[in-house]
Amino acid sequence: MTKSIQDLYPENLSYCYGCGRNNPDGLHLKTYLENDETITRYTPDPKYIAIPGAVFGGLIASLFDCHGTGSAAFFICQAENISMDSPVNVRCVTGSLKVNFIIFTPINTELEIKGKLRKIEGRKIWVDMTLTAKGELRATAELLAIRLKE
Amino acid sequence: MTKSIQDLYPENLSYCYGCGRNNPDGLHLKTYLENDETITRYTPDPKYIAIPGAVFGGLIASLFDCHGTGSAAFFICQAENISMDSPVNVRCVTGSLKVNFIIFTPINTELEIKGKLRKIEGRKIWVDMTLTAKGELRATAELLAIRLKE
Repeated sequence: MTKSIQDLYPENLSYCYGCGRNNPDGLHLKTYLENDETITRYTPDPKYIAIPGAVFGGLIASLFDCHGTGSAAFFICQAENISMDSPVNVRCVTGSLKVNFIIFTPINTELEIKGKLRKIEGRKIWVDMTLTAKGELRATAELLAIRLKE
Repeated sequence: MTKSIQDLYPENLSYCYGCGRNNPDGLHLKTYLENDETITRYTPDPKYIAIPGAVFGGLIASLFDCHGTGSAAFFICQAENISMDSPVNVRCVTGSLKVNFIIFTPINTELEIKGKLRKIEGRKIWVDMTLTAKGELRATAELLAIRLKE
């Protein structure tokens, strides 16, 4: 899988601060599908600290937010056999997000966020996620995504 | 109550991207105590969009994150009769945060985030929050804050 889901979003829905390719000020997160799992790798700018040495919880929530809705779009494409070679008209927003902060996430290192599908029911998609840094699990999250009507 | 909790945090713990007065790039959120409730008012920069017209979920989570830990610090001061006139050595981090997105939060308008104490048990503090814009409830959140050891 060479294209990220954010490279497949429609132009007019690609302005998200977290992951929109058309937002010049944003984080430009990129979520990839690897078999039945999704992955985003990201190294936060050092300005995103909470207390010294630790990544700001709001940034961690932001990573899970975009990774979760992006993962949901991928999982819909898989479930409905929608081609992922060209732009797809599948876009989700967040219904709810719960983040569990397990141990501090260190700054100045690459973070790896992974997602797995729990279930799809109509326009609702549940995604379970993990955030790892330096080989250790730092946070987990569960996200309920809502598929936008076309 | 004229001082925000962020004006009372110790110097070395005031670098948070969301609410630290010593972070030159941050959001500089300010949380005030009004009777038994806390309040933060904030107008996001238009770059923080999700889909056009709506505030990015990650920013909303960030507001709840800092408002929730700030509220927890205030509620500890109230419960323990700690003076809030000068710097206080009370600082909390987030154990878990759940955000429910009810309807889209519009950009270009002031957001009002309010917090109430649910309970305190040792170093754990639970805070319930709401986010309102243009007089309508947009999102709710519950946060478990963990008090840092001094």
